[in-house]
Amino acid sequence: MSFSPEIGIKQGREATMRINRQWRIARRPAGLARESDFEWREDPVPAPGPGQVLIRNQYLLLNPTNRVWMRQEDTYLPAQPLGSVMRGFTIGVVEQSRNAAFPEGSLVTGALGWQDFAVTDGASDFLIPIPENSEISTALHLGLLGHGGMTAYFGLLDIGKPRGGETLVVSSAAGGVGSLVGQIGKLYGCRVVGITGSDEKCRWIVENLGFDAAINHRSEPVFKRLKDHCPRGIDIYFDNVGGNTLEDVLNLINDRARLIVCGMLALYNDVGGSLTLPAGPNNLLNLMVRRARMEGFLVLDYRDRFEEAVEAILGWYQAGKIRYRLNIVEGLRNAPHAMTRVFNGSNSGNLVVKMS
Amino acid sequence: MSFSPEIGIKQGREATMRINRQWRIARRPAGLARESDFEWREDPVPAPGPGQVLIRNQYLLLNPTNRVWMRQEDTYLPAQPLGSVMRGFTIGVVEQSRNAAFPEGSLVTGALGWQDFAVTDGASDFLIPIPENSEISTALHLGLLGHGGMTAYFGLLDIGKPRGGETLVVSSAAGGVGSLVGQIGKLYGCRVVGITGSDEKCRWIVENLGFDAAINHRSEPVFKRLKDHCPRGIDIYFDNVGGNTLEDVLNLINDRARLIVCGMLALYNDVGGSLTLPAGPNNLLNLMVRRARMEGFLVLDYRDRFEEAVEAILGWYQAGKIRYRLNIVEGLRNAPHAMTRVFNGSNSGNLVVKMS
Repeated sequence: MSFSPEIGIKQGREATMRINRQWRIARRPAGLARESDFEWREDPVPAPGPGQVLIRNQYLLLNPTNRVWMRQEDTYLPAQPLGSVMRGFTIGVVEQSRNAAFPEGSLVTGALGWQDFAVTDGASDFLIPIPENSEISTALHLGLLGHGGMTAYFGLLDIGKPRGGETLVVSSAAGGVGSLVGQIGKLYGCRVVGITGSDEKCRWIVENLGFDAAINHRSEPVFKRLKDHCPRGIDIYFDNVGGNTLEDVLNLINDRARLIVCGMLALYNDVGGSLTLPAGPNNLLNLMVRRARMEGFLVLDYRDRFEEAVEAILGWYQAGKIRYRLNIVEGLRNAPHAMTRVFNGSNSGNLVVKMS
Repeated sequence: MSFSPEIGIKQGREATMRINRQWRIARRPAGLARESDFEWREDPVPAPGPGQVLIRNQYLLLNPTNRVWMRQEDTYLPAQPLGSVMRGFTIGVVEQSRNAAFPEGSLVTGALGWQDFAVTDGASDFLIPIPENSEISTALHLGLLGHGGMTAYFGLLDIGKPRGGETLVVSSAAGGVGSLVGQIGKLYGCRVVGITGSDEKCRWIVENLGFDAAINHRSEPVFKRLKDHCPRGIDIYFDNVGGNTLEDVLNLINDRARLIVCGMLALYNDVGGSLTLPAGPNNLLNLMVRRARMEGFLVLDYRDRFEEAVEAILGWYQAGKIRYRLNIVEGLRNAPHAMTRVFNGSNSGNLVVKMS
């Protein structure tokens, strides 16, 4: 892992090429998204209209939500039509500006898509400026200080409300969000148990990130191990996967437990692009028995408070209290292939594509 | 419907009989509970020890929770061993008292069981005194002003937090709890749609109770009708049934919707007395997409605030703002048979057994 601010280095060259390379959605995936579900396109770079800016993307974040956005149904964002540029959060530099909020040369982040260049008015793509800070590498803003960090911070603290001595269980615990959730849980005095998909990742979250215990859901009986590792029951569950794991957790929750619905990885790779989904947990009645709460949230709703979270997370990171893993894939061309790593268990930490 | 305070009328006679008739649990039901799952017993009336009171039951409430208590698993109350007196909430008169909190002749309510007489220290059976009020019939304290009323009041107002103009959907809408939830929702300015199991009950909740619309889940396509009757989506769902209806509702919830888990009738009549349950909704991810909350509660947790709810409900009732239906079955002997009415859709309002 190495980061270096690269603003400006390639600016001249690409500005003269004026080619905008893009991945567009060619079809709704059946199961995991494949490269054949995308179409590679090379178009002229668009020019910004009044109130708009032209941004050159530097890094693109790949995460499970990308797969959800490929569905034909609207979710919390409108469905993307076939043929449109694949949605994705990026970091980029403003190259031309006709909007005073985003001056030329400044760094921004937003839903600018799987492409080299984007034109936007800002509002429609959740564009926010990134303060210059030479101590922080550019790519870090996309995960630790970007939507991954914000998701971990607001999901755990605002919905989960952890208290010292409580037991927190996190699924996808070695992922970009889960790995932060567990570490923040430790800072709040929780016993933290992570569920993940390989022995290597189990070792990483326990030995490097300080989780109290880890469960490999591919090789261990999850319910039995949860019982072993949560002798006082489960107070908070940060759910990234749904499915059977959710059912197992629901059988072990304490009174007043909080279940944070962050994602349901188990449901994302639906067949045929439509909502033919596997059944849900059969024990939701435990929410009544345990007076428990299951609550969803969207990090975009917290935009007004991002500054608070960035400050807290950066403070912990710079003090060495939390660790962060960022995996960088070189080249937009490799984005579809890299996305399968989000789902096949071979990735830990955040995964970003570096534009080349 | 007619009620009359009967305190004292039969006191002398039964006190001399000294026979305590009881229904005990003979076996775990498979599906609906039948009379053969109970055993009739006649024992001597027990004497109260130090700190205890002897209570003669007058009315016994039958509701869906009774079936849950017959399971072999602990729920929010410990499982009842086979051979024990069936648990049930009653209203009765203190006949002998060795506890100053419950003087002789006073009216009390608590989990005193399917029997003529109970001995209790109070705390272990949730015993609370009922203030004398000659305007209110005794039986009314068991439903409208008892756990049914408390459940409707705290579930809807504390967990659901209704606001004027919102759309509230209630399942088991003609039941003792649901019929109150809908009427309280109307008082708070909601559009209220009830789901119930017969045309007669649909008519009753719309024409007599003021619901805006009703759906007969036995003869109508629930999802389609919900869409028709909730043109602005669903903000609050008071769930008494779980199952497919919950899945339908989850597909129509608005942002920040609240789903109140009061009961899951569809799951209660589990086979073989154990937790072989039907699958849950496949669309819990909508909780995330809609930033929604699904929360369980237990009315017993609100005991400290019962007085507030009794005052409010009684006020509405006496002002004619809410209506209430109470069905009285004569004789403890008929309790097991009457309990099937709770599940087969033939009951509306609350159902109580009058001891004979």
